[in-house]
Amino acid sequence: MNPPERFFSPPDTSVYVDLANRSYEIHIGSDTLVDAAKHLEEWVDRASDFRGTRKALIVTDGNVLKPHAVNVERSLTDAGWTTTMFTLQPGEQSKRMSEIEKVYDALVEQKADRKTVVIAVGGGVVGDAAGFAAATYVRGLPFVQVPTTLLAQVDSSVGGKVGINHPKGKNLIGAFHQPLGVLIDTATLDTLPNREYRSGMAEVIKYGVILDREFLEYLEENKNKLDIRHPEILQHVIARSCRLKADVVEEDEFERSGLRAVLNYGHTFAHAYEALVGYGELLHGEAVAIGMVHASQLAEKQGLIDAEATERQIALLEAAQLPTSLPERISLSPDDILSVMRLDKKAIAGKLRFVLPTRLGHVELFGEVPEEDVREVLEQN
Amino acid sequence: MNPPERFFSPPDTSVYVDLANRSYEIHIGSDTLVDAAKHLEEWVDRASDFRGTRKALIVTDGNVLKPHAVNVERSLTDAGWTTTMFTLQPGEQSKRMSEIEKVYDALVEQKADRKTVVIAVGGGVVGDAAGFAAATYVRGLPFVQVPTTLLAQVDSSVGGKVGINHPKGKNLIGAFHQPLGVLIDTATLDTLPNREYRSGMAEVIKYGVILDREFLEYLEENKNKLDIRHPEILQHVIARSCRLKADVVEEDEFERSGLRAVLNYGHTFAHAYEALVGYGELLHGEAVAIGMVHASQLAEKQGLIDAEATERQIALLEAAQLPTSLPERISLSPDDILSVMRLDKKAIAGKLRFVLPTRLGHVELFGEVPEEDVREVLEQN
Repeated sequence: MNPPERFFSPPDTSVYVDLANRSYEIHIGSDTLVDAAKHLEEWVDRASDFRGTRKALIVTDGNVLKPHAVNVERSLTDAGWTTTMFTLQPGEQSKRMSEIEKVYDALVEQKADRKTVVIAVGGGVVGDAAGFAAATYVRGLPFVQVPTTLLAQVDSSVGGKVGINHPKGKNLIGAFHQPLGVLIDTATLDTLPNREYRSGMAEVIKYGVILDREFLEYLEENKNKLDIRHPEILQHVIARSCRLKADVVEEDEFERSGLRAVLNYGHTFAHAYEALVGYGELLHGEAVAIGMVHASQLAEKQGLIDAEATERQIALLEAAQLPTSLPERISLSPDDILSVMRLDKKAIAGKLRFVLPTRLGHVELFGEVPEEDVREVLEQN
Repeated sequence: MNPPERFFSPPDTSVYVDLANRSYEIHIGSDTLVDAAKHLEEWVDRASDFRGTRKALIVTDGNVLKPHAVNVERSLTDAGWTTTMFTLQPGEQSKRMSEIEKVYDALVEQKADRKTVVIAVGGGVVGDAAGFAAATYVRGLPFVQVPTTLLAQVDSSVGGKVGINHPKGKNLIGAFHQPLGVLIDTATLDTLPNREYRSGMAEVIKYGVILDREFLEYLEENKNKLDIRHPEILQHVIARSCRLKADVVEEDEFERSGLRAVLNYGHTFAHAYEALVGYGELLHGEAVAIGMVHASQLAEKQGLIDAEATERQIALLEAAQLPTSLPERISLSPDDILSVMRLDKKAIAGKLRFVLPTRLGHVELFGEVPEEDVREVLEQN
């Protein structure tokens, strides 16, 4: 879906993630990939450890290789870089140790040294897998994210979490490895399938609900344009989402203080739904959209918010063409959902923990939500 | 080899590694393992992220399990900890991804959460492998080192380097993951085979040569006691070595400024010898002892030091029963050695880099040593 010609591209914008000597820029614009070399050179040359390096491994997947990864590669080779391209299979099954070992082999093969940059061009799977390889090869290679899905642009490419799956749990094996920079090209969204685009929009709406009432109101004002990929709105939406996530990451980089948990609004429900219906049946953002509504209903039951707060979220999610309840075809028993929730990585000693809004634009972590209330929410849906 | 009864055990001593919020204590004493719980509880309860945790995975190998790992486990279970024991095969072949995956499985099996402590009880292989699993499980578990060889006590357990091997290179896959604490029991050395004990002593002597002339003189004064495992001397030697390594790590934790490279004195030669003769034929410390002599001879050729500085190192290494030249049974061609050196992980663009003494107690990194001079050193040996 190409934007109609009357749309003008806004000037590029930047979000700065302030993490002492692991600080970096998120550069957001349209058609930025053709200038990939310019941005990368700025980033590597600013880092005294990597100054002057002009060697990269580009990791991508078969869906993104053409044109995006190829465009990045061309920009680099035109600027005199030495590059190697490594293409993963698209999909979650690439987040496996056996695939990471192939990335290691590619690094050995190209005689990577400690300054060789690993560049992830793709969605969340590519970023997570390439980032884990970068985090662990010779104890850490410089890493750049070029996210090409809305979900990766507003969420997974920011904050330094990288990792792969274990047969017993998603992202169970991983590291914190901040990138040297994140390069976002809104034009990559033109060709993104509708469901994937909307899946990313769920996380955007989440940021408004959990952290920024003003941003939520901006989304409400523009709700008829959220699904048409208007470049100016997209650029603001991505920049604001990245800024909000960066604020949280700056305060709790290693997920220790509990603050970073606010980003998991809707996710306790969503993870359970995703696990029970099988990955792919529900996209992550779809599960998050449904989970947000259920978490909001749970907050109502706790007397934290009124029904209007939930209704506003539902209206916004619907405007973005996202589901707000489990599809009819999916039938899950409350017992099954509850038992999966108790196994959540973030559950402590089997107690259910939920991030719940106390008003629009603000959430808190509740460690002792009565199971009865959760069950009632599940039964009414 | 038990110490004669006239030896008294000195009081315990501590070395503090100052790395901001990754700081930790190295506790050194004799018979400290029976008090493992006391030390661990002090360390975890001081770290706000891990306070109150009483769950651990102990990783060891078949040679160390009894009595050392069992002693640690008993101390913990007596104090109310929940523990699981995971036993690796002894030897370098345990530093493989397939073994790490078994450690992950053990963590899943025991329902490890983010506060479960991974405790490595053993030599360098156990520490490196267990540390890598700890660094990457749920993006980082708290980790404690209980090194039971002299080499691990004075070198690999300090500084946060963890990792495993790739078929194409030792320690190619790894991370920096500082421990919460290091618990050293000098009594574990009583049963260490002679060659392994002496191998550790090579690194001790290295610290004197590269960083501390006074310590070198202390070693010379006590050179007749170095091989008899006198507890008082051992405790001083271990504490001083840890302090010297900690000083370097505090200045260059992530091996970026080049300072940490000074620890590689003798190692460019040593790595080449180890790679060419096959691991195990020469123990690491034996290769380092020979490598130090050759590096010192190379420094002579560069006019940096006089022959006496080399002779003093040879005398000290011989007193510790270490080899100072390649054994007669090993015949290596200078060409083969040079080509392996050029592939060293620390070589940059194939140029040979050497850490060389400019006086006893001080070394510098030389990036442009003429190959001719290296060849002459190799040919005269």
